[in-house]
Amino acid sequence: YSSSTEDTRASEPRVESIFEPLDTFPRRHIGPNATTAEEMLRALDPPAKSLDEFVKQVLPSKILSSKDLRVEGPMPESGSVPTSEGGYSESQLLARLREIAGANRVYKSYIGCGYAGTRTPEVIKRNILENPGWYTSYTPYQPEISQGRLESLLNFQTMVSDLTGLAISNASVLDEPTAAAEAMTLSVNALPTARLKRPTKVYLVSHLCHPQTIAVLESRAQGFGITIEVADVLKDNSKRVEEVGEDLIGVLAQYPDTLGGVEDFRGLADKVHKLKGTFSVGTDLLALTLLTPPGEFGADVAFGNAQRFGVPFGFGGPHAAFFAVSEKHKRKIPGRLIGLSKDRLGDPAARLALQTREQHIRREKATSNICTAQALLANMSAMYAVYHGPHGLKRIAEKVAKMAQVLAKALAQGGLEVRQPVAFDTVVVKKHEAALFAQKSASNGRMNFRVVDDEHIGITIDETVGKKQIEEIIRAFTTDAVDVVQLAEGLDATSHLPESLKRTSAYLTHSVFNSHHSETEILRYMNHLQSKDLSLVHSMIPLGSCTMKLNATTEMVPISWPEFANIHPFAPKDQTKGYMQLVDELERDLAEITGFHAVSLQPNSGAQGEFTGLRVIRKYLEQQPGKKRDICLIPVSAHGTNPASAAMAGMRVVTIKCEHDSGNLDMADLEAKCEKYSEELGAIMITYPSTFGIFEPQVKEACELVHKHGGQVYMDGANMNAQIGLCSPGEIGADVCHLNLHKTFCIPHGGGGPGVGPIGVAEHLAPFLPGHPLVADVGGEKGIAPISGAPWGSASILPISWAYIKMMGARGLTHATKITLLNANYILSRLKPHYPILYTNENGRCAHEFILDVRKFKESASIEAIDIAKRLQDYGFHAPTMSWPVANTLMIEPTESEGKAELDRFCDALISIREEIAEVEQGKQPRDGNVLKMAPHSMKDLICSEWERSYGREKAAYPLPWLKEKKFWPSVTRLDDAYGDMNLFCSCAPVETVEGMTGTAAPMPT
Amino acid sequence: YSSSTEDTRASEPRVESIFEPLDTFPRRHIGPNATTAEEMLRALDPPAKSLDEFVKQVLPSKILSSKDLRVEGPMPESGSVPTSEGGYSESQLLARLREIAGANRVYKSYIGCGYAGTRTPEVIKRNILENPGWYTSYTPYQPEISQGRLESLLNFQTMVSDLTGLAISNASVLDEPTAAAEAMTLSVNALPTARLKRPTKVYLVSHLCHPQTIAVLESRAQGFGITIEVADVLKDNSKRVEEVGEDLIGVLAQYPDTLGGVEDFRGLADKVHKLKGTFSVGTDLLALTLLTPPGEFGADVAFGNAQRFGVPFGFGGPHAAFFAVSEKHKRKIPGRLIGLSKDRLGDPAARLALQTREQHIRREKATSNICTAQALLANMSAMYAVYHGPHGLKRIAEKVAKMAQVLAKALAQGGLEVRQPVAFDTVVVKKHEAALFAQKSASNGRMNFRVVDDEHIGITIDETVGKKQIEEIIRAFTTDAVDVVQLAEGLDATSHLPESLKRTSAYLTHSVFNSHHSETEILRYMNHLQSKDLSLVHSMIPLGSCTMKLNATTEMVPISWPEFANIHPFAPKDQTKGYMQLVDELERDLAEITGFHAVSLQPNSGAQGEFTGLRVIRKYLEQQPGKKRDICLIPVSAHGTNPASAAMAGMRVVTIKCEHDSGNLDMADLEAKCEKYSEELGAIMITYPSTFGIFEPQVKEACELVHKHGGQVYMDGANMNAQIGLCSPGEIGADVCHLNLHKTFCIPHGGGGPGVGPIGVAEHLAPFLPGHPLVADVGGEKGIAPISGAPWGSASILPISWAYIKMMGARGLTHATKITLLNANYILSRLKPHYPILYTNENGRCAHEFILDVRKFKESASIEAIDIAKRLQDYGFHAPTMSWPVANTLMIEPTESEGKAELDRFCDALISIREEIAEVEQGKQPRDGNVLKMAPHSMKDLICSEWERSYGREKAAYPLPWLKEKKFWPSVTRLDDAYGDMNLFCSCAPVETVEGMTGTAAPMPT
Ligand SMILES: Cc1ncc(COP(=O)(O)O)c(C=O)c1O
Ligand SMILES: Cc1ncc(COP(=O)(O)O)c(C=O)c1O
Ligand SMILES: O=C([O-])O
Repeated sequence: YSSSTEDTRASEPRVESIFEPLDTFPRRHIGPNATTAEEMLRALDPPAKSLDEFVKQVLPSKILSSKDLRVEGPMPESGSVPTSEGGYSESQLLARLREIAGANRVYKSYIGCGYAGTRTPEVIKRNILENPGWYTSYTPYQPEISQGRLESLLNFQTMVSDLTGLAISNASVLDEPTAAAEAMTLSVNALPTARLKRPTKVYLVSHLCHPQTIAVLESRAQGFGITIEVADVLKDNSKRVEEVGEDLIGVLAQYPDTLGGVEDFRGLADKVHKLKGTFSVGTDLLALTLLTPPGEFGADVAFGNAQRFGVPFGFGGPHAAFFAVSEKHKRKIPGRLIGLSKDRLGDPAARLALQTREQHIRREKATSNICTAQALLANMSAMYAVYHGPHGLKRIAEKVAKMAQVLAKALAQGGLEVRQPVAFDTVVVKKHEAALFAQKSASNGRMNFRVVDDEHIGITIDETVGKKQIEEIIRAFTTDAVDVVQLAEGLDATSHLPESLKRTSAYLTHSVFNSHHSETEILRYMNHLQSKDLSLVHSMIPLGSCTMKLNATTEMVPISWPEFANIHPFAPKDQTKGYMQLVDELERDLAEITGFHAVSLQPNSGAQGEFTGLRVIRKYLEQQPGKKRDICLIPVSAHGTNPASAAMAGMRVVTIKCEHDSGNLDMADLEAKCEKYSEELGAIMITYPSTFGIFEPQVKEACELVHKHGGQVYMDGANMNAQIGLCSPGEIGADVCHLNLHKTFCIPHGGGGPGVGPIGVAEHLAPFLPGHPLVADVGGEKGIAPISGAPWGSASILPISWAYIKMMGARGLTHATKITLLNANYILSRLKPHYPILYTNENGRCAHEFILDVRKFKESASIEAIDIAKRLQDYGFHAPTMSWPVANTLMIEPTESEGKAELDRFCDALISIREEIAEVEQGKQPRDGNVLKMAPHSMKDLICSEWERSYGREKAAYPLPWLKEKKFWPSVTRLDDAYGDMNLFCSCAPVETVEGMTGTAAPMPT
Repeated sequence: YSSSTEDTRASEPRVESIFEPLDTFPRRHIGPNATTAEEMLRALDPPAKSLDEFVKQVLPSKILSSKDLRVEGPMPESGSVPTSEGGYSESQLLARLREIAGANRVYKSYIGCGYAGTRTPEVIKRNILENPGWYTSYTPYQPEISQGRLESLLNFQTMVSDLTGLAISNASVLDEPTAAAEAMTLSVNALPTARLKRPTKVYLVSHLCHPQTIAVLESRAQGFGITIEVADVLKDNSKRVEEVGEDLIGVLAQYPDTLGGVEDFRGLADKVHKLKGTFSVGTDLLALTLLTPPGEFGADVAFGNAQRFGVPFGFGGPHAAFFAVSEKHKRKIPGRLIGLSKDRLGDPAARLALQTREQHIRREKATSNICTAQALLANMSAMYAVYHGPHGLKRIAEKVAKMAQVLAKALAQGGLEVRQPVAFDTVVVKKHEAALFAQKSASNGRMNFRVVDDEHIGITIDETVGKKQIEEIIRAFTTDAVDVVQLAEGLDATSHLPESLKRTSAYLTHSVFNSHHSETEILRYMNHLQSKDLSLVHSMIPLGSCTMKLNATTEMVPISWPEFANIHPFAPKDQTKGYMQLVDELERDLAEITGFHAVSLQPNSGAQGEFTGLRVIRKYLEQQPGKKRDICLIPVSAHGTNPASAAMAGMRVVTIKCEHDSGNLDMADLEAKCEKYSEELGAIMITYPSTFGIFEPQVKEACELVHKHGGQVYMDGANMNAQIGLCSPGEIGADVCHLNLHKTFCIPHGGGGPGVGPIGVAEHLAPFLPGHPLVADVGGEKGIAPISGAPWGSASILPISWAYIKMMGARGLTHATKITLLNANYILSRLKPHYPILYTNENGRCAHEFILDVRKFKESASIEAIDIAKRLQDYGFHAPTMSWPVANTLMIEPTESEGKAELDRFCDALISIREEIAEVEQGKQPRDGNVLKMAPHSMKDLICSEWERSYGREKAAYPLPWLKEKKFWPSVTRLDDAYGDMNLFCSCAPVETVEGMTGTAAPMPT
């Protein structure tokens, strides 16, 4: 749409008819209005006359799309054909979504398989899940302004560590099946080097693992050349383990198993260890309040889904999976790990530990590509444990276990054959024509059972089940009258189990799990943590490559609706028609936006999207004649997840240079590499606009070149926010592209997740989109094995992106892209007189982000990017992306949601910081101990009697006048990263430390 | 229920059956658990052996109820009879409430009458209405920790002032009809003294005012001896005004009128003024964006309902009514008024202005008793205006106006007779058998019209109405095909009106209404304001007599459901069955709790309850033989609203002394007064436990005495939290009692409202409970005229109290009472060694609150209660109730929701403050400029280069160690009250002041 800043149709309610709704969305989403956008165009250096002229200065003409975007809009009040331009108003959107939600049927689901019903305490739902203070924050890269969620994630780690009986837990992984995959690759990493070289690597997986876990393992094993062998791992005293011998990389078992039983794995663990293999266990946190934890029977790794700790089914996600390892593996743990360290004042403080890992230091040999994880859900689950405490959790577990026993007894009494033992929550019972039976139970009794096989039904009990439900279940199986109250009498939760399987060790003994059990207390605790964290409710978060835009309330509202929240991922299709409609529409819109033929919503993060896309490409290439094509070209500037994903997909990574001056792809180098590897060329991964924030003019040529040599083009869509409506990956020539719905499409970042990383693909790749073992009609006909445990990944947050697209409409989306470009170039223009800008195009423009080059200050003033980043906190801002993609620089991305006033505040802050640097350069301030080096300043730091610094307290706190009215305070001073990594300590701090503020983190030395 | 601290049935989930739900509520609501309650009993001075022994030390045995409370509970999982002891679990409660809500039918309501459909912007709903940071705060008595809501209320005042064209607006009144009543009494107050003495006082009310307004005026007029005359006030050139002549106190008109017309009132205004009367206008803020504002045509007062600015119908409330006056009446404005002043540093800051007014200084001559108002709703409406801005509001108004015109045209075209002019949103059309027609439209078309009379239908259009709805309305009237799009062409919102009625003046020009129009901006603005306010999410608010207990999320959730939110107060009965069920059950439970026969939920606040109760008493007494009984005995210790309400009910107030040592009612004085006024004795008003926090032993005797002399006993139930389950007003001998549901029954205080003040009455008074002119079957057969505009007052928040009662169950409620007593006595015991306690009973116990006597420090250290109150802010606490009921003391009420840890923090703070006072007493610190006199300290105050105080910065900010971890900062230093009252300035500060922080509030001098 050619348009001006005026574009009233996009940014203001349409005035054509008095009947049109006034609660239009684009003007609420987009910061600058027509007037301020005009001002900004004029303030650009050089100025631009109009928005469209400006856009042409930013995008190469050959890239610009020739056609207007089309997104099906609402039935207009004034006509009869839905417009493909305008979006739904907020009220229209909610009404439409209510309709869609109404097409889902919320039945009781006893399907189990790693998902169980739960009660989200309302106080947690309202104050975390529905609270922008929690959901709009970013991954806690800046610990001084993130202590709240860091503390909460530390609680999560402590909870997992305690319950699994393993020393170290990370801060969540994407889902249980990918956690299993991480366990497998960790097992590879843990092998002695000599063993790594053996041609055969066998991962022995218990046949009693959840089926979707096994399926995802298959998909992950291929790239590593691992053979998955599914077997009865205990049979004949685990004979098979010994048979596999030196080929064994590890064993995976489920505990309790997918059919509800438990076994003693001690002997198995010994055998695995004897072969230097790793023993991993998929497990259930609630069960572990009653059962011996994996860490006590020899497991090296334990993982599972924390969903039943207060996070609804959500038709498959998002939930936090957990991952814990024994002491010896702690430096191999995948994903993000929170650790304690200390700050400049010596006070304990939490931060991301061991940050410089795989994706950074050995990118193309990485075995894990986790970036965005499930922070928000991990925080919900942690708070669930904080609120219930060990006693409350145990009570819930006992109730569940006893009810499962009552059910088992009743069914047995009714003459049915029940699998023994019923270890915890799951009862498996013999039933002919199980599928038919399950179908009838759904339609007549509104309850879903698991069809284990044609002869068996599985029933998983959860904390939401009461007497009425138990009686209903029983009635589905038998007409005999059963007195469940009588059956329940005198029951004990675990007395029927061998002593060796009963838990005796304590858990959740830390005071945080024993202090906040009234609603007032937990509310204050959550609020206190929140008060330490900077999020979008405070100020812009200009993180380049992260697209921290408005996560609008209307987008967020539906995810709490029971019709979206309370549906099991494997619920029968006739109960999920609403979801299917939404998925269809979203896939269609995303295909239109990306210029592709088909979309898969399965990947739970951008990195998962990369892995999926590359596997799809490989599967396609396998079907082509010729050599194995496993070379993946990746520009040096790529995000760490790119090479990591390529490696995981079993590809060999070859690096492509970028031109020194422009940052653009070095076409000569590309051509050379294409020639060199012509026969083995599998793919190129490119980010567009580039990670340097430039619309490279030669991207089409690059695509053509790769195609010419038989390769496929994978586009990393992290920067899609700069493209929508103006150009598209498909038109540019890509074959696959992932999107980060948690960037471009408004899913909030949640302090480090959830995310959704769908991929769009060209027609020839569509047949290979991932399927699902338990749900029909997912993915392509020749689909690759699944990437996620749930068929549509993190389905319950898809309404957010759907709502965004539908409310913006094609015109609004396009206008947003133009404004996002304008916002970035406005900041660039204002900062240019003060800082070098690393790259711009030949018109002096950047795309939606740009890199501020602060490297020269190292010499002139001993100031590095980190000092500027930390000093920005004193000004109330989150730092831009630091040292990526270029070391010691800052990458700034404002997004379209920030208005001019906020952009100006941010520019003023950076300009003021530049003046502070100049004072050092000029010798007015020392090179050490100046206000930048000492940044950030906490209140405690400034409110002290002695003050012997080279600058005043007021300068530290209030360098610009508006800070006196609106100041966000870092809660600690600068963290000591090295100390924390050396002294890794990853659970809650000993209480005395925190209370006494003694300044010793009492770390467990390593 | 005799019980111990253990009382597991009340505080822990029942363990009798494995099927019982575990998400029980009492243990979440009540702070101390069994273990800490035991510790506290032991720590009492003297210690108590058991909870029941302790209770007997607190309550006189003759007061203690002999029977257990009974509240109908849930169907238990394990039996068949609902228990009368145990409460619903949280999930059971929500399920039951979903069922009840489902019995309401949400039809489109075009009934109008001062209520209109609206769209609450989702961002405002989530971040204010559903945000405990906003809804749990108290009335901003402590401005230094309340600047956020004070600023927002100032926005509300500015908005009202701008739109009405009048100089001064208050910060909300209860509803539109009571606002009319306030206008009437203000008119009385504004009369020249001579005129006050005339025997006849006529208030001339336009027959085109809303009918419920006229009804409420009737009820309020009686006590003042005012005659309400309803007339066509414009007829024959307002001849009637001149006829009434010197008897006239004022005229009231509606603009636009209740039938949708507008007239030019300039001539009328002149006539009224000539007679020294006051001209008041009921109006509509949205209409005023298009129409000449009342202030420009001579109105002295303008009021109305701000509901349609973003607050849903709610079946009648709560909404914020507004009230504005011209400059000359500014010191007569009723309700709460926010004004600007300056703080110790000279910075502008807002606060409650002119606080020492009627209820304080001339209590028994008061003409208004407003205390709790509608702050939360006022804030929502103000934010609605901030978000839409003047331009957006006007666009909404124009849309509404044009659609009403389209409708009028269509109906006229269909041959119907339409009342002219259609000035804004309401179309009145002639229709035979209007009632039948309305009924059919409801059942066939799911839309509600107003039945104006048997021949007329009223239709009021609002911002939620679109083309579809307009067409549906038209179809209800005519089968002719109508092309509304064509009718809409070229329409102008006001061109059919005379020039004199079209608005030409600007409004909402202040930058706050022109800055926050994107969702990101408004979110940050709301969050910034919130960050300045201390609420229950931070720490306990120990305000004596205010009962600041947990407002649980599960209680709050249902009020956002459309089935409760979107129902017009005058919707037909068959659409409100859910509400009726809820009202019935709540009335029944409250009757049981108070020991009364019947309950009315109509009053919108405690003070309104008082007025209602006294009017009921008077009505009853009128029917008795003998003299007019209009004497009301009121103890000196009574809350200011008591005498004010008595005065408004037309009673003569006679004061009863209290004993100096015990604080108890002086029985001798009471007896003397009873004797003296035996024949005229109407009532006594007593608060129980007394406002001094004591269960007076002789209360039954007092009741008997008054009864013996023919009087009725009115109990102020503000302290009901100390009674539930242990004793009851009914058993004690009261005839009426009001409850503050916003204290005892968990409706959050919302920063100064909403409230609900139902009254319970004995059987003989039940026939007189207030009715309603527009809704049948409300109140008693001989009911008094209504107190509120809506039949069940603030109906939409009744689910909160219902949920509280149902989740606590009888046993939980009783246990809560015991713990609330324990909590108060625990603090008392801990503080006793440090401070004098003003009153305790003969066992050394207080009730649920007690008075800390700090008067002696005035002499010993020049320290007054206010200094301690302000210093408490530095410790992160809200002050206790200051100087009420005893000057220069502090009254502390902890409530049952606070756990021991929080009580200890609070005690530690007060003990630490006592040490700070001692330092002054001992001469270690000066009597001026010490840390108490300088309190509170803001960040700005401490972060400065120069520091020449007698104490250090750290002492100011961190007097106790935990403050370094968790500190709430006052956003300004101590306010200068006198300055603000002298220089009254009641709208938003001029922008330069705030931005430049120059420290001059630029007040408009008076
Ligand atoms: C360019 C780029 N690619 C890939 C990713 C990985 O996405 P995710 O964090 O969703 O896994 C990111 C994340 O920031 C990115 O910036
Ligand atoms: C003893 C007493 N009576 C009456 C009231 C008035 O109640 P309301 O504010 O609900 O009008 C109060 C309010 O604090 C009170 O404490
Ligand atoms: O999350 C990122 O690595 O950018």
